[in-house]
Amino acid sequence: MSEIAKVWLDGLWCDSHSSQTFTAINPSTGVPIGDQYPVSNWVDCERALAAADAVAQVLPDVPRDRIADFLERYATAIELDAEALANLAHEETGLPVTPRLKDVELPRTVNQLRQAATACREGSWSLPTIDSKAGIRSVHAAIGPVLVIGPNNFPFAFNGICGGDFAAAIAAGNPVIAKGHPSHPGTTVRLARLAATALAESGLPSALVQLIYRMPGEEGLKMMRDPRLASVGFTGSKSAGLKIKQACDEHGKPAYLEMSSINPVLILPAVLQQRGADLAQEFSGSCLMGAGQFCTNPGLIILVGQANASEFVAAVQAKFAAAPAGTLLSRQVLDSALSGIAKVHGAGAQLLTGGKAVTDNGRLALENTLLHVTGQKFLENPDAFQTEMFGPVSLIVTASDLEQARAILHRLEGNLTGCIYSSNDGADDAGYARLAPVLRQRVGRLLNDKMPTGVAVSAAMNHGGPFPATGHPGFTAVGIPASLRRFSALHCYDNVRAERLPTILQDANPSQAWRLVDGQWTK
Amino acid sequence: MSEIAKVWLDGLWCDSHSSQTFTAINPSTGVPIGDQYPVSNWVDCERALAAADAVAQVLPDVPRDRIADFLERYATAIELDAEALANLAHEETGLPVTPRLKDVELPRTVNQLRQAATACREGSWSLPTIDSKAGIRSVHAAIGPVLVIGPNNFPFAFNGICGGDFAAAIAAGNPVIAKGHPSHPGTTVRLARLAATALAESGLPSALVQLIYRMPGEEGLKMMRDPRLASVGFTGSKSAGLKIKQACDEHGKPAYLEMSSINPVLILPAVLQQRGADLAQEFSGSCLMGAGQFCTNPGLIILVGQANASEFVAAVQAKFAAAPAGTLLSRQVLDSALSGIAKVHGAGAQLLTGGKAVTDNGRLALENTLLHVTGQKFLENPDAFQTEMFGPVSLIVTASDLEQARAILHRLEGNLTGCIYSSNDGADDAGYARLAPVLRQRVGRLLNDKMPTGVAVSAAMNHGGPFPATGHPGFTAVGIPASLRRFSALHCYDNVRAERLPTILQDANPSQAWRLVDGQWTK
Repeated sequence: MSEIAKVWLDGLWCDSHSSQTFTAINPSTGVPIGDQYPVSNWVDCERALAAADAVAQVLPDVPRDRIADFLERYATAIELDAEALANLAHEETGLPVTPRLKDVELPRTVNQLRQAATACREGSWSLPTIDSKAGIRSVHAAIGPVLVIGPNNFPFAFNGICGGDFAAAIAAGNPVIAKGHPSHPGTTVRLARLAATALAESGLPSALVQLIYRMPGEEGLKMMRDPRLASVGFTGSKSAGLKIKQACDEHGKPAYLEMSSINPVLILPAVLQQRGADLAQEFSGSCLMGAGQFCTNPGLIILVGQANASEFVAAVQAKFAAAPAGTLLSRQVLDSALSGIAKVHGAGAQLLTGGKAVTDNGRLALENTLLHVTGQKFLENPDAFQTEMFGPVSLIVTASDLEQARAILHRLEGNLTGCIYSSNDGADDAGYARLAPVLRQRVGRLLNDKMPTGVAVSAAMNHGGPFPATGHPGFTAVGIPASLRRFSALHCYDNVRAERLPTILQDANPSQAWRLVDGQWTK
Repeated sequence: MSEIAKVWLDGLWCDSHSSQTFTAINPSTGVPIGDQYPVSNWVDCERALAAADAVAQVLPDVPRDRIADFLERYATAIELDAEALANLAHEETGLPVTPRLKDVELPRTVNQLRQAATACREGSWSLPTIDSKAGIRSVHAAIGPVLVIGPNNFPFAFNGICGGDFAAAIAAGNPVIAKGHPSHPGTTVRLARLAATALAESGLPSALVQLIYRMPGEEGLKMMRDPRLASVGFTGSKSAGLKIKQACDEHGKPAYLEMSSINPVLILPAVLQQRGADLAQEFSGSCLMGAGQFCTNPGLIILVGQANASEFVAAVQAKFAAAPAGTLLSRQVLDSALSGIAKVHGAGAQLLTGGKAVTDNGRLALENTLLHVTGQKFLENPDAFQTEMFGPVSLIVTASDLEQARAILHRLEGNLTGCIYSSNDGADDAGYARLAPVLRQRVGRLLNDKMPTGVAVSAAMNHGGPFPATGHPGFTAVGIPASLRRFSALHCYDNVRAERLPTILQDANPSQAWRLVDGQWTK
């Protein structure tokens, strides 16, 4: 019988207080792999909260350099362990080692940690603001212990122990309690061991980072309600996210949730006529990449006008049918996709291809699935047709004309992204002008002539959007410096004596942070 | 019989659909004054939402200059009408015409509108961010219709029709539905008429600003739940604020709430010994000013150590007893203060002076009220002793020593402000170092050697704080540019063609906004 993995609490790798365990399952074979992992009960949660709370008291006095140093050491350690990490993550997630895990996601993760380190060291993210005449100064400061809950689909880049929310929360000066995703616990604990070494080398409080693998839902909500927890970063399902949101809302606690998005793509008539075949290729590639398991997967494509629509649909259908069925992350992903497909189909969408699980020596997979519905039908039940079908699945909506497309956009929920393809010769410009403002209000990121998959780690990125894509339309989960500000409180100092101010607000500006001094941004 | 005032909906002054009316009451005499005002039913609310929604669709295409122009015209109109406005507000609120209303609050209000106009025209508030290499650009943009609900205590500076939230929401490019406070409807409608003229002169959509006076609680919550309403700005009681918060939270809608705060003031031993008499004067002045009806009124004062505490308490007690009882804003304020005093007294605080309503020819007033409790007693029931007693009321806590004071701070809820007085000779420095970090985490604005009343309109101000002082610790209700960002959503543009970008994100930067371009703030 395999070992029961230890949790990492208060600086120690220790036996969990748990009444249950779970194992990872290799989705390419359906076979359990690796150690057993504990489902922590409240004793573990309590210990994590107490230790994080204690660390939060001393962190304001820890030099930012030391935190940045930890993030950089950790990044380097991940880089050096890339081969083994990618192989392990592949086993647990079915995602290909190369290029996806080793050449794309892992370098992206390392890059995020390094960007966060730079932001932490330098401090501009905190928008230091000085009114020298009034003697008032303010800055975004650490909010306190953050619970970071990672999703299933990015074992590195969004992992609770090393991903974007982790990097942002730590760089903003907060202790993190990481909850790994149960579908890749081995990858998570391997990362945590690298974090532990880097933390020790940096001379930081050892409970700055802690790890639990899983807890019963009720214990998780109890953590959200606990006054020692200041904030939550969550990427995952809408149903789990809404429960977290409610628990945090009741206690006036900011929770940053990335929940669900179907990422509408709109193709205007002239570009469809001019480049229909290319677009069918581009769309299929984006939708099927990684077996469609991206937050920004294009799950809804709206064609405007009848001309050329059927050729496009047929071309996509053929590509979906011809492409191999990618391995899914877990049984849950498969079940949830099948249930979403059943709902959309049941509401009256036509199944063009796919729709069934692939049984293939235990491998967890789903046929690439394409559905179709007319604009008129969509408008009869817009909620049902916006059901998220996470996986290699998309719904094509054929709108009769611009006005019907506009009516459809008006019924869309909040999404992370929205794309509009239009021709280069001006023929679609009037349509763009009519539709873009409606889409703009419903998405965080508006794209032109480009599919939504691929979320650059850029200061200008918004990986966020209106509810229910996230819980607050003003924040982004990707992109430094803005992502750090989520895990902060605004701290104002009024007439506070110079030597008592935090370094970043003192007259000297040793870290060369950008500061808004009497209305001018200056270093 | 007096007239029934008209509501201002969709650009028209029209009869309200209402089943009830109310009148203002002069708190200096207890006598009803002025017109009758309607309690709007859902027909009015629906009309306001529909009109605001329609305006929100066209506003992105309206030049920012025109919105700024409206704010400036409105500011000037208020200035020109200062005399009449101040007299009317005095009648409705009992606040003195001079200096308070005419010389302080009205100029502050005009200044806020002008600062908001400048911010709107120039655009730096929106943190435009450009990644030229990746072709990604983002900016904080208008969120949509905002319901602004003003409080009783600032008929100008926080009025739903012209105060800080109003100015911020309009300057950020949003339509506002203003709900005046029922205790000063005449002032509110007089301001609204000035707004209407300024709006017409600016050539803006006439439903950019709308006014209702009051609606039943359930209709108000129905507005919060309506998808056409994007956000709420509220200043008022914790009980009303929590209901608004819940309704907005359920729909993933950001609500900015300024709810309650007792604004702890900590006096360390050496400064108490050195300047006790001055501090008694300073504190009494701050607490009794405006009959204590400020969000930042010092309602809890903590003395550390026994020495000199009794002299300080006696001095404050004498000042409270000697000062005239200021007129309160309304019967509700009086009742609520009496109920708060009863609760704190009932929990075991000693009543040192005051505690009773003043009956004085119908005038609504409360004796200046001072209570006392030991630190030990406070710690037995910290919730009860943190009951807000809005008015000329404060609770003195005598902590036996630094450690007991620290324990008290640990039990404090979130507040807008926290003050620490310490000596200049270093004798209190160790105490400051021990206590300030604990207080820091529990307040939005930390002050040294200064009372919390007086909230400068400064870019560095934070008039906000952790729950339950507000609903989110990252935002301020006062201070431009930050207050505008509350009423925004983050809009990202990825690969969007240059001519389709909003002006502020195009390469040319005609408004000379500060923008973060490839990591550098530049104009």
